[in-house]
This record gives sequence, structure tokens and C-alpha cells, in this order.
Amino acid sequence: MNKFDMEKNEDNYCKNLAIKIFDDIADLTKDNQGVTRESYGKGEDKAIKYLENLANDLGLFIEVDECANVIFSINENKNSSYILVGSHMDSVPRGGNFDGLAGVVAGFVILAEIKHKNIKSNFPIKVIALRAEESAWFGPSFIGSKAIFGLLTKKDLSSMHRDKNLSLKEAMLSCGANVEKVQSSKIFLNKDKIKAFVELHIEQGPILIDKKWPAAIVTGIRGNIRYRKISCLGTAGHSGTIPRWLRKDSVFASTELISRMDDHWKTIEQHGGDLVLTSGIFHTDNLHHAMSRIPGELFFSFEARSQDPSTLLALEGLLKSECKTIEKERGVKFKFDDLIKSAPAELDKNIIDKLLKSAEKFGLNEAILPSGAGHDAAIFSDQGVPTGMIFVRNDNGSHNPEETMEIKDFIVGVSILKDFIKNF
Amino acid sequence: MNKFDMEKNEDNYCKNLAIKIFDDIADLTKDNQGVTRESYGKGEDKAIKYLENLANDLGLFIEVDECANVIFSINENKNSSYILVGSHMDSVPRGGNFDGLAGVVAGFVILAEIKHKNIKSNFPIKVIALRAEESAWFGPSFIGSKAIFGLLTKKDLSSMHRDKNLSLKEAMLSCGANVEKVQSSKIFLNKDKIKAFVELHIEQGPILIDKKWPAAIVTGIRGNIRYRKISCLGTAGHSGTIPRWLRKDSVFASTELISRMDDHWKTIEQHGGDLVLTSGIFHTDNLHHAMSRIPGELFFSFEARSQDPSTLLALEGLLKSECKTIEKERGVKFKFDDLIKSAPAELDKNIIDKLLKSAEKFGLNEAILPSGAGHDAAIFSDQGVPTGMIFVRNDNGSHNPEETMEIKDFIVGVSILKDFIKNF
Repeated sequence: MNKFDMEKNEDNYCKNLAIKIFDDIADLTKDNQGVTRESYGKGEDKAIKYLENLANDLGLFIEVDECANVIFSINENKNSSYILVGSHMDSVPRGGNFDGLAGVVAGFVILAEIKHKNIKSNFPIKVIALRAEESAWFGPSFIGSKAIFGLLTKKDLSSMHRDKNLSLKEAMLSCGANVEKVQSSKIFLNKDKIKAFVELHIEQGPILIDKKWPAAIVTGIRGNIRYRKISCLGTAGHSGTIPRWLRKDSVFASTELISRMDDHWKTIEQHGGDLVLTSGIFHTDNLHHAMSRIPGELFFSFEARSQDPSTLLALEGLLKSECKTIEKERGVKFKFDDLIKSAPAELDKNIIDKLLKSAEKFGLNEAILPSGAGHDAAIFSDQGVPTGMIFVRNDNGSHNPEETMEIKDFIVGVSILKDFIKNF
Repeated sequence: MNKFDMEKNEDNYCKNLAIKIFDDIADLTKDNQGVTRESYGKGEDKAIKYLENLANDLGLFIEVDECANVIFSINENKNSSYILVGSHMDSVPRGGNFDGLAGVVAGFVILAEIKHKNIKSNFPIKVIALRAEESAWFGPSFIGSKAIFGLLTKKDLSSMHRDKNLSLKEAMLSCGANVEKVQSSKIFLNKDKIKAFVELHIEQGPILIDKKWPAAIVTGIRGNIRYRKISCLGTAGHSGTIPRWLRKDSVFASTELISRMDDHWKTIEQHGGDLVLTSGIFHTDNLHHAMSRIPGELFFSFEARSQDPSTLLALEGLLKSECKTIEKERGVKFKFDDLIKSAPAELDKNIIDKLLKSAEKFGLNEAILPSGAGHDAAIFSDQGVPTGMIFVRNDNGSHNPEETMEIKDFIVGVSILKDFIKNF
């Protein structure tokens, strides 16, 4: 490891250290395209070992929990309350360097600076490098944070690796986790001691770019309602011979449904509601469809995401009532498979307010947005830990090698976090 | 052949003869399901031979043209003008008994009755049993009627049978057609002598059933404009992280387009326009689509049919302008493949009026409708022959064994035709 020269440029301490860590870990975990940091596997382990070595060099205190997550702090300090900062170390296969890692590095450089400059703050901070957030490797998501709170099920633990004959349990063992204890649903962190958990993460959408915000505060994590398959059943027929009033056309019926739901979406947004709607799969029956055949069947998925459970409930009702109306008007029938629900995760109002106050100092007034994707923060929040999130601007989405977070934007996020910690 | 007892029930002469012919030909050409009367092939030939034998028995005059179509009349009568009645003898594979055959039988029983009862009319009638209307066997449609007018192309003649190593040319030869002459684009009927061509056909849609009309007069044959494939190209993305204003969603864009076209359809209908719209193929990209992915591509076919060329032209313009609007609003791009056009066939106003006057005598006031499917009548009409069509009520569409035309409805059609001929 090249010795990092901290003395030369004190003002850029956090920035220079962050650049070094990002570059080194990208190097250590690079794949043919992007980086690969397998959950409870090679790349994730390399990145964690790198941080442990660096922490050692910097004189930080290192703990490894029973789930093989790593926690950094100034010193052991067993009994005091603290602010926890962190995110996850793994990536999707051939993913980007910043999804997850940015949140760990943010905490790490702040901790290093505190140590280096001997800064005093009201609460000590701890930085957690979580394992296995991505569902890409074993199926379940948020494995490292779930494990901390005894939330991993037997089924989770016996999930198999996407392309190896390796269970999650075996993978965890190989990384030093105490799987016996993980299986017994023990809780490995004393929640009462965590005064706040803050996760910094790159934005996986395009809002910050559009709004020209380098960073912003997350208001909540969207939940969702989903139907994998809704079938619209009409009656097939010769396209030339059946007039409008006798048609039972599944395409005209389903497109009307989506248009009506789009109108509701607009209205809910105009009234300040949080909502995104997606029908990612939408198709006539490829065994029967033809240019001159009135389509008798159409199949589609439907997903609504919102931070607000009541918006999701309303959407479910609106979808069903619009289907009823269209069924009457067009003589078709909509059939639904089972509804899949995931509740929104609320972030802590007090933490959001404090983060926003810090953000304002960097010119980011009312820079708030919801998170559409899930995060480890949701697990901490569900467990009653006062939780907040900071998003950093990032182009090209995530889960791909093209994700691009600029270091100056990252430093805005780090500065908000530092200010938050200082004034907590 | 059982001798048909014509003397016993003179009033039901046409009806009883028709029942006998329908039953006998269904028997002769039955398949595992429905009937199969291959174009210029076995079933079609059997059915034509049956009619020739019956015509012989009844003392009718029989001509076979160079294209192997058969024409029945009272006597040769080479120089006088005449009314031509008929339709086609072939069927789709495992089709119904009445599609095509009904129109030949209608003319045949009227001719037989004229012969039998020695009825005088202003114009002699001839009945034509056309070959090869269905595209199901060789690809091209209306082969028998096109051949009459020298319209078969070399490409048509070299079309291959759907499942035999047999060209259309070879099939025509095997049925006695003079393929040399057919190839030379000779015209085999003196158009000037045909004062009217009337084709009776079962309706292939559900309008007569809905309107409770046993028969009705056809106002025209719809033309169409078609795109086999329109691509809507947006941008894929994570369904949770991209808000409405930043989406380029191909499903929301395309469903809006169809809904807008549906609104135009309603408006055009309310103003008395003739139009049917169909998007028979409509699908997201099955290599990439997923429930939680904003769909970046959607592909669909689009077809408009109308009797009115100006309506089709307007539709083409409306489609393009709605696409432009949606492109601007939603950031997507619509790409069109080549437009396929087929002009509407106009039926003769004078013939339609006369057929309607006859229909009114059977309680059918304003019983008019367009034909959505193509017919041999369109070929005659395009050639300048004053042409009309009568539709007879039929359940379950056509091209399937479940088509059901009731004989009493058929007789209403025959009666209209008789009255038309009588008063021509």
C-alpha cells in the first residue's frame, strides 16, 4: 500500500483519503467490466480487508461482529451511545464502484479525520461496513443488516449462490460469521445505544442531476404493491368484420386502463402525493396474436411505489374500480394473480430535519427526495433505530459499470454528514 | 345421388334444393373437423363436379372458362347481356360449409327454379362457381376472379402450396385451366355484357346477429392501412427511482397513443364515418422486460379499415400527429415500418339501391352494413362491373367449423336476390 500523505494538504484530508480508497478498492475488485464484490465472497472480502488494514494504519479501533460485518471507531468505548454511519461493501456482478462503498467511505474518512485532528463531538461515531446488501448473489437482500437484527430466516440461509453450489450459510461461514448464533435469531447490536443511523448512498435515479443538487436528504423509502400478471380477457375475432360496439378487445381495454391509471398518477402528484407507476411487462399472446386478429388476451404486470401506505392502498382500490368500469364498457374481464406488498420504510423526522439543516448550510434548501430503491437503512428504521439517508448525485443509474459519482458531489454529502454529527 | 323430389313441395323449391346441395357438398368434402375444399384441389373439385352433375340433371347449360371456373345458365345465349350471380367454391382448411358456397348455391337454386318453372325475366342470369378465393392455400386471394380479368401475376402463379411441393400454376393445370392463356393476361369475360354482379355471402362478423337482421345489403368493402410493426423507443430504468417527469416509458406512451386513437375512432363514428381500428400485436421486449424495469421498448401493429379512402387518409395523419405530440410530452420516439395500403372497393350505388328496395319487401329497412373482409365482388367492382353484395346472418365468424348459417336466413337472402333479378 502506498503511504497516504495526510500532512501535505490538511484541508483536503477527507477528499484525498476518499479518492485513494475508491481508487484502491476499484483496483482490487475490478472485473472485465466494472467491479465485482460478491456478497460474503471474494471481492467483498478484499475490500473489507483493505479497510481493516487502512484502519490499522490510521490507529482506528476495529470490531468484527458475529455476522462478519466490520465496525470502525476511535476506541472501544463499550457503554456510550453513538451515531452509526455506514452502508454495504458488496456490489452486483460487474457493477459500479460507488453503490454501497460510498456510504462506508463517507463514514470512514470522517472517522479518520476525527482521529487525525483529535476532534471532539457530542457523540462518538461508529462506521459500519455491512456485507451482502445486493439480492443479485443469493436472492435475499440486506443480508448483513438483517443478520445483525436476527432477521435471517432458515430459508434465507439455505438460499443458493446464483452460479455456484454454495449456500448463503456456507458463504457466511467462509467469511468468519458465527452461523450458529446468526441462526438463533440473536441481536448483535444494542439498538438503544444507536442514537442515529445515517446511510449515505449514490442516487440510483436521475432526480439530483435534473435538479442540479450535488446531494439531497431522503424523506423515506418507497414501499410497493405489485401484480406479476394481470390478464385481460376479451374475445378474438376478424379485425375487419367486428364494429367498435361489438368488440371485446383486450388491447383497447388494457391501454385504456393504463391511461386511466396515468391520469390518477398525475392527479396524485398534483396534490403532492408520492407515487411511481410501472407496467414493465405488457403483451398480447404471442401464440395467437396477428395483425388482423382482434386480440383476445393481453397480459401485464403492474407496480405502484410510494412512501405513503395510504397512497398504495388508494392505488389498489383505483386499479380495481377502473377495471370494473372498463369491464362493463368493453365486455372484457380482468383477472389478477396474488398481490405482493412491501410496506414503505419511514425515515426519522427528527433526523431528516437535522440533516436538512446541515444541507442548507451548503446551499441545498428543500433538497429532499424519496428513495425508490430499498436500502439497509430500511432495516435499521424498521427496528426502531432513528434513521436518515443522504443521496449523492450519480449519473447512469446504478448496478452497472457506467455509474458516475463525482468526488466533489461526494464531498458535499460528507460535509453534510460531518455537520450533522458535529451538531447532533 | 338421391333423386331430389321437386314436385312434392313447389313453394319450398329453392329451400329444399339448397338444403340438399349444402348437405351433399358438406358430406363430400368433410374433414376431421369441418370441411376442406382446397383451392384448385380435391375438395373444391369434388364440389364443382357435384354441381355440374346436378346442373346436367336439371337441364342447365354449363360452361367452364379458361380458368376452370364454372358458369351455369338456362342456355348458351351468347350475345345477350345478363346478371351474374355467384361466389367461390373453396374453403380454408377445416373451414365451415357456407363461406363461399352459400353465394353459389343462392344463384344455382334461383336458376334451377327459373328453369323448372319456366319463369321469364328481363335479363337472363348466369351463375358462377369461382375457384380459389381463399389465401390460405397459396398466399394470393381471389385467384379465380383475378384470373378471369387477367390480373394474376407471374409471382402469383408461382406461389407454392402451403404444404405441398406444388405451384399454383401446376394446381390450376391439374384442374383443367388453360394456364398459357391465363399467363397472357387475357380477359375471359366480356365485362360489357354483365349488367350486374351480385355476390351473396355469409357475414363474417356479428352485426346481423346483433341487429336481428336475417340478411342485409353491403354498402362497400373496407380498404385498409396497416403497419406491421411500429416501435416505441423510450429509456429503460429502475422502476422505483425515476419519477414521472423524467420517465421515457414506452408502455405509458403507447397506451396513450392507442387511447387517443380510440377517441378519434369514437368521434369519427359519431359523425357517421366507417372505421374499425385494431392493434392485434402489442408487446414489450420479451428479452428485457421485467416487472421492476421501466420498459424501454414496445412494438405494435396498427390497422385501420374503412370504406372511405378519405377516412383512411385522415387516420394515417391522425396517427402520425398523435405520435408527434406524445413524443414531445414523453420523450419517446415512434418508428414506423412501411405502410401497407389496400384501397376500399366501392359497390355500385344503383345496385345497392335496387337490392335495398328488394330487402325492404322482407321487412329489412335500412339493413345495410360494410364488409370488413375482402370478397371476389371487389375484383368485379374494380373492373367496372356494377356490383352488389348480400350478407346472410351467420354465427361464430367464418373460417372455422362452427360457422352457422340458418337456412331460413339464407332463404331471405335468396328471396331478396330473386326480387332484385325480377325487377332489374
